[in-house]
Amino acid sequence: MASSTSSGSRLVFPIDPKKKPGEQKLPLHNRWHPDIPPVAEVKTGEVFRVEMMDFSGGGITKYYTAEDIKHADSSLVHYLSGPIRVTDADGIPAKPGDLLAVEICNLGPLPGEEWGFTAIFDRENGGGFLTDHFPRATKAIWYFEGIYAYSPHIPGVRFPGLTHPGIIGTAPSMELLNIWNERERTLEETGLKSLKLCEVLHSRPLANLPSAKSCVLGKIEKGTPEWEKIAREAARTIPGRENGGNCDIKNLSRGSKIYLPVFVEGANLSTGDMHFSQGDGEVAFCGAIEMSGFLELKCEIMRDGMKEYLTPMGPTPLHVNPIFEIGPVEPRFSEWLVFEGISVDESGRQHFLDASIAYKRAVLNAIDYISKFGYTKEQVYLLLSCCPCEGRISGIVDAPNAVATLAVPTAIFDQDIRPKSNKVPTGPRVVRNPTIPQCTYDGNLPITKNPSAAT
Amino acid sequence: MASSTSSGSRLVFPIDPKKKPGEQKLPLHNRWHPDIPPVAEVKTGEVFRVEMMDFSGGGITKYYTAEDIKHADSSLVHYLSGPIRVTDADGIPAKPGDLLAVEICNLGPLPGEEWGFTAIFDRENGGGFLTDHFPRATKAIWYFEGIYAYSPHIPGVRFPGLTHPGIIGTAPSMELLNIWNERERTLEETGLKSLKLCEVLHSRPLANLPSAKSCVLGKIEKGTPEWEKIAREAARTIPGRENGGNCDIKNLSRGSKIYLPVFVEGANLSTGDMHFSQGDGEVAFCGAIEMSGFLELKCEIMRDGMKEYLTPMGPTPLHVNPIFEIGPVEPRFSEWLVFEGISVDESGRQHFLDASIAYKRAVLNAIDYISKFGYTKEQVYLLLSCCPCEGRISGIVDAPNAVATLAVPTAIFDQDIRPKSNKVPTGPRVVRNPTIPQCTYDGNLPITKNPSAAT
Amino acid sequence: MASSTSSGSRLVFPIDPKKKPGEQKLPLHNRWHPDIPPVAEVKTGEVFRVEMMDFSGGGITKYYTAEDIKHADSSLVHYLSGPIRVTDADGIPAKPGDLLAVEICNLGPLPGEEWGFTAIFDRENGGGFLTDHFPRATKAIWYFEGIYAYSPHIPGVRFPGLTHPGIIGTAPSMELLNIWNERERTLEETGLKSLKLCEVLHSRPLANLPSAKSCVLGKIEKGTPEWEKIAREAARTIPGRENGGNCDIKNLSRGSKIYLPVFVEGANLSTGDMHFSQGDGEVAFCGAIEMSGFLELKCEIMRDGMKEYLTPMGPTPLHVNPIFEIGPVEPRFSEWLVFEGISVDESGRQHFLDASIAYKRAVLNAIDYISKFGYTKEQVYLLLSCCPCEGRISGIVDAPNAVATLAVPTAIFDQDIRPKSNKVPTGPRVVRNPTIPQCTYDGNLPITKNPSAAT
Amino acid sequence: MASSTSSGSRLVFPIDPKKKPGEQKLPLHNRWHPDIPPVAEVKTGEVFRVEMMDFSGGGITKYYTAEDIKHADSSLVHYLSGPIRVTDADGIPAKPGDLLAVEICNLGPLPGEEWGFTAIFDRENGGGFLTDHFPRATKAIWYFEGIYAYSPHIPGVRFPGLTHPGIIGTAPSMELLNIWNERERTLEETGLKSLKLCEVLHSRPLANLPSAKSCVLGKIEKGTPEWEKIAREAARTIPGRENGGNCDIKNLSRGSKIYLPVFVEGANLSTGDMHFSQGDGEVAFCGAIEMSGFLELKCEIMRDGMKEYLTPMGPTPLHVNPIFEIGPVEPRFSEWLVFEGISVDESGRQHFLDASIAYKRAVLNAIDYISKFGYTKEQVYLLLSCCPCEGRISGIVDAPNAVATLAVPTAIFDQDIRPKSNKVPTGPRVVRNPTIPQCTYDGNLPITKNPSAAT
Repeated sequence: MASSTSSGSRLVFPIDPKKKPGEQKLPLHNRWHPDIPPVAEVKTGEVFRVEMMDFSGGGITKYYTAEDIKHADSSLVHYLSGPIRVTDADGIPAKPGDLLAVEICNLGPLPGEEWGFTAIFDRENGGGFLTDHFPRATKAIWYFEGIYAYSPHIPGVRFPGLTHPGIIGTAPSMELLNIWNERERTLEETGLKSLKLCEVLHSRPLANLPSAKSCVLGKIEKGTPEWEKIAREAARTIPGRENGGNCDIKNLSRGSKIYLPVFVEGANLSTGDMHFSQGDGEVAFCGAIEMSGFLELKCEIMRDGMKEYLTPMGPTPLHVNPIFEIGPVEPRFSEWLVFEGISVDESGRQHFLDASIAYKRAVLNAIDYISKFGYTKEQVYLLLSCCPCEGRISGIVDAPNAVATLAVPTAIFDQDIRPKSNKVPTGPRVVRNPTIPQCTYDGNLPITKNPSAAT
Repeated sequence: MASSTSSGSRLVFPIDPKKKPGEQKLPLHNRWHPDIPPVAEVKTGEVFRVEMMDFSGGGITKYYTAEDIKHADSSLVHYLSGPIRVTDADGIPAKPGDLLAVEICNLGPLPGEEWGFTAIFDRENGGGFLTDHFPRATKAIWYFEGIYAYSPHIPGVRFPGLTHPGIIGTAPSMELLNIWNERERTLEETGLKSLKLCEVLHSRPLANLPSAKSCVLGKIEKGTPEWEKIAREAARTIPGRENGGNCDIKNLSRGSKIYLPVFVEGANLSTGDMHFSQGDGEVAFCGAIEMSGFLELKCEIMRDGMKEYLTPMGPTPLHVNPIFEIGPVEPRFSEWLVFEGISVDESGRQHFLDASIAYKRAVLNAIDYISKFGYTKEQVYLLLSCCPCEGRISGIVDAPNAVATLAVPTAIFDQDIRPKSNKVPTGPRVVRNPTIPQCTYDGNLPITKNPSAAT
Repeated sequence: MASSTSSGSRLVFPIDPKKKPGEQKLPLHNRWHPDIPPVAEVKTGEVFRVEMMDFSGGGITKYYTAEDIKHADSSLVHYLSGPIRVTDADGIPAKPGDLLAVEICNLGPLPGEEWGFTAIFDRENGGGFLTDHFPRATKAIWYFEGIYAYSPHIPGVRFPGLTHPGIIGTAPSMELLNIWNERERTLEETGLKSLKLCEVLHSRPLANLPSAKSCVLGKIEKGTPEWEKIAREAARTIPGRENGGNCDIKNLSRGSKIYLPVFVEGANLSTGDMHFSQGDGEVAFCGAIEMSGFLELKCEIMRDGMKEYLTPMGPTPLHVNPIFEIGPVEPRFSEWLVFEGISVDESGRQHFLDASIAYKRAVLNAIDYISKFGYTKEQVYLLLSCCPCEGRISGIVDAPNAVATLAVPTAIFDQDIRPKSNKVPTGPRVVRNPTIPQCTYDGNLPITKNPSAAT
Repeated sequence: MASSTSSGSRLVFPIDPKKKPGEQKLPLHNRWHPDIPPVAEVKTGEVFRVEMMDFSGGGITKYYTAEDIKHADSSLVHYLSGPIRVTDADGIPAKPGDLLAVEICNLGPLPGEEWGFTAIFDRENGGGFLTDHFPRATKAIWYFEGIYAYSPHIPGVRFPGLTHPGIIGTAPSMELLNIWNERERTLEETGLKSLKLCEVLHSRPLANLPSAKSCVLGKIEKGTPEWEKIAREAARTIPGRENGGNCDIKNLSRGSKIYLPVFVEGANLSTGDMHFSQGDGEVAFCGAIEMSGFLELKCEIMRDGMKEYLTPMGPTPLHVNPIFEIGPVEPRFSEWLVFEGISVDESGRQHFLDASIAYKRAVLNAIDYISKFGYTKEQVYLLLSCCPCEGRISGIVDAPNAVATLAVPTAIFDQDIRPKSNKVPTGPRVVRNPTIPQCTYDGNLPITKNPSAAT
């Protein structure tokens, strides 16, 4: 691939998928901090190319085993490409208070790397949305045929990917970083007393606070005092925040535009965690079809755009969120099967307008239903995490039940999964090969006792 | 309208919109209970027509005032049409354990009643999703021109309605009704201690427990011992539950199919709360374009379908949810502007993977943004409650932030609401007429102090 | 149905489907002429309702016989509702040179008349696009279940209708009428020498010239000198022309807008020939799902709009065509099977960039292919004439072959009609009931000898 | 770009866009003949990559001049990549009578070559669909930003490309080739007497018969007797025919599947003429956005599939056409402006159900209308030739007028091009820069005298 041509895109961040994260031409990073220096510079209007490793930096392999998932080091995610400094045509950098409009001109897998994976973490190692039901490390490998993905581990489905970067964001200012660290620390310290969802998910960390473990800081040399300081302060990349980050919006594909607030000079744009496809919610956590890949981007700087377009929704002017524009190029499906959940949990307990509980129940309902068509529940859990299904908040006001829905496009299956009124189906239900790479769960926590539990 | 023809639909539940609820030909009801007797009977395969009042039974008027909203009696909602007993072609009724497949063949407003309303309840009278920001009773009237709705109170928008019934459900069995009442009572009694969302919404009732006040029970005569007993036990219609009910799924329009569990002999189908259009979440509570209307339905009975297709997700076999099928006939938009929210509330406090908080912030972000284009915040709140916007759970696993998004189709506006990179807009921003019927808020509760608060 | 309410639409042209054309409250007409007087008047901005008979005025029945088709009197089509005079809010009528913007707010079948028919005329009585292959009068009856149509005569298909008026147009001026009559007479007189398509369709009339036979002229009393004069001059309604008319654009459904040129004072809008659904081309001639029905319309007058927006494409300023706007509410299908045709006819003869021949071959290819799935060719011919299939001109420049395509949405079938690579199909091909009402062909003309000919 | 990896696609036909056709690693060809030997071989099931030059082999340049268009050698189009021999997994080749299912997994421009052109040929050099109106050689250059194209020569429009190969086909057998040559020669010899469209397009060749001029035959060495024989017999690539070929179906993009008949052992698949985007009809002839590019394909062999799925539509079993399947991934537009044409030509003469004439008038109407928004007519002609507009055969039975429509998605313009009812537009109409590369027309033929003629 040529690095630069007059009309093509300029490659500003190359990745060699055969090499390890530490061996790449430009250094990666896996934390948010204003002092991680930019490794590349782009001008507004130019189309440039950024390549990226998969979120694990190659730690999760293409082999048919879940051992790599079971022992994955969650402290080193996500390997990001950048930061990229953005200036206008005159070389004047983006400034705090500006908006950075980033258009996704093109994106896809790296040539020769047309594969990805979807996985469930072991319950003791982070788990996922349904970790109390599915505690065992499990993995499915997907192969791509152009726009389509298929998996030997979840036979009978094939779907076009709505490819997108899971993470795209600007660097936080020190002031914003402090806000993040303080509020997440407060949650970590006080959360156990008051939170209900964690009764269900109680082995999952409440927040992922700064940690020097496995910290990678781009050009900053490990072991230096600067590294030590930044590593102590820098925010983890796991949650989405005011700077964008891990927003996991599955429709951010070709032709989309992202309006990111700028907090530091040059904006310091970073991106990573490419997904070939993802369902709304990415429920299995490591749950999109994770892959390495490339983005072709074009930036505009909207001077003072934060004040013009974003209104702080919190105590400081920094409490803002990005805005997104989604374009006309998407796979569109004409028929959907929709599963509903209400905010009553598996124990039968009523919760008050809790959309997270309602969505959990909708996903569990969908898993149970679809598993009737020849799949294990783990297969469906992985599938609903990565196929283009839509998770909706349908009702959020009719106390006490929030109503959430999960809509699954029926065309992704090679059989008709709709309910049939006649007792005799048109054909025997297909028996699928249930062999999916999976590890034993050795933890101590009990698994939810209800009909949907994995068996 | 002829009541029956060989090829047309048979009218089984007529409504005269000029008359009051108590004056209709067939009696209405506003509670769920197995002992409310059916008032009509249909056979599988026949297309039949059900007409319905608006949810308030005409209590909310077409006049340009919000006084009727301010003093609305929330104990009498929702007026439902039915119950309708369903039998198969041989006259054998639907039985507990069956699935009732209800296809929506057609639906719309009643002739001559091509109007509706969207409203915010006063904070002291139920409020809505953002009641701490918008405490004042407010109302907008909408007029329909075929598939389109427009409002003199929210000028500059016009959109096709994705018309649907807010409520469709089967009667619960006594066993299921007891489960509902017990779990909702438990919430009401213990909720205040443990719930976080209610810190924000603390003037809203946690649940709406059975109450004889304004109770309407169809053929059951008021004042009889039977009425007294049922009124004490019957569930309110406000939340969606295992029987369907107030699920507010905005895509249940023409050509959709609903698979409802059957809990009593004959299924006892009821429906009401017609919406000309609604946004995901129906955030203003009385928040769709509420109207009277009609449904043309066709039923199938899937014998033993509950066991075949639904898996209980709780301690009893009754803990199920309906399944829905959505068809190919919808307005589809090519461009969307997407607002994001994370589970950090307006005070800056971090919550753990709370999709309700995240969605609240997404909606607040959207309101603030769109209000820059010549609207008051109340106008936008009402608009986002009733226009065909999509509320998504984008990320529910990246602790501690749930990411919710609200996607607004840009084509509903008569101006381009996308961010512009050039400082000088192509035209002056339209100054809209802010005169919207609204009452004073006389309550004692403080309004949220943040930039998005109503002024 | 109330005729008028404050917010509903005003009924300006009522139809009683139980009565004959001559017995309706307002007189119908079946010709275009400037002197047919208006029977109703509307103002710009008001939503009004026009009801209409089916194109045959009830001549084609709902009985399962094709005898009515075989002996249909083609000289009396199409019964139109109108003319309607349009004025602005001040009562000033539309004037020649204006554009009349007509929005279709709503439309559908008449209550109790939820059925329609699709038919092939006998070759001796008008035939259709493929009359040399299918010379026998044939009819299928369709029933509507809300938005869906199904037919006992073409089992295994069901589709949502994109309902539209086949005919909508303004009255021609005398000058325009003279142009029509002259050019069509010239064709009739000189055509046989030079036209190639008619070698194939040689029993079809080349044009349908004015004729007093079965002429119906609204308020003009039959037998008067005025009637005689108009009947001699008035244009038949069969072809679409500069005034709109029988344009058969299948996407003119709810939310569409039609910009019609105005040739006479008041515009004199007429409409009729309602179609529940139609495929591009309406190949069977009587080929949509023909029905009675209603339109709810709203008009605007764009003063001097013809000059502003239309450019004459011919020797006079009257040689213009209407413009149409199509809205977002349509059934959309995700998968299509596409059949191709090139401008080589069934005898193997090459034609020069002839899109009509190419489309004919595409339709014949589709008929042959789909008939492999358990249908007779006549059934498929009728189906492709009325289902929402798309007829495209794909290539019109690559001499000598025009390439036309016919795209059929696969979701309308209850079986998978795509080619399968494995020899053993997933199930036996369904054997459909071929009993479709059909008459014998008694004509003298030979039927095309090729594999697709009806047998 | 790696040529082969375990999971990526294997590059079987490489192109270096910096080199001339004769300098490529594998030889190209520009004729159809059974004896052009395959240059590569693939197995069913494998994903392979084929690169291709633009149709002119680099003859048309990226420079802002139309001189290259004016003097283009039309006898050398189109440079194709292939033939590719296809075998099954056991190495047994495709055989005559099989169907070759070719899935388009992916496609796009070559890296570094993100540009294309759209052009009008000089009337004396081939012209186009509207050559009598637009006789001058004209060219627009387009640049790609990911999925979007924009042109400095047609400012104010930008649209996502529905990229597709203009040509994909199998080699004809000698028997089929003879049929082609005979029928096209007959047309050439007898056509002038009987054809009407050519009265209008009379400087265009009726057919493009075999010619040794500029003939390129892959591995066959020029000057050998074999070369001479093949060059005399081989069919030109300009029209689409029974083998697929230049079908110019604009929706054959990612995820599509093409079922091609096999006429020779190995199928001998060739492809070329990549289009970044094209409108239905490709009216300007050199009218798509022409570019070099790549395809990633996957083949299946359906043994005896011709008999199973294709029915000959002519005197021999070879008179068949391919079938196509179109997938769910397309840009979809919600609003369209539709222009209509009827089969009356610019002189006012009536033609009988002639869809080509009707489409011509629809295109002319669209050109005139859109040119009111600041464009020259040539700019619009080029635009409608290459943007994703849809050309439909709306009515083909209402004698004497065929009705064709051209639907243009309004979202491709940066201004609202819909008719406005108020006289004062919301802003001044944009004055576009009319500087588009164009040559003088020096021919002798008169240009059509009507209001739409180029000035």
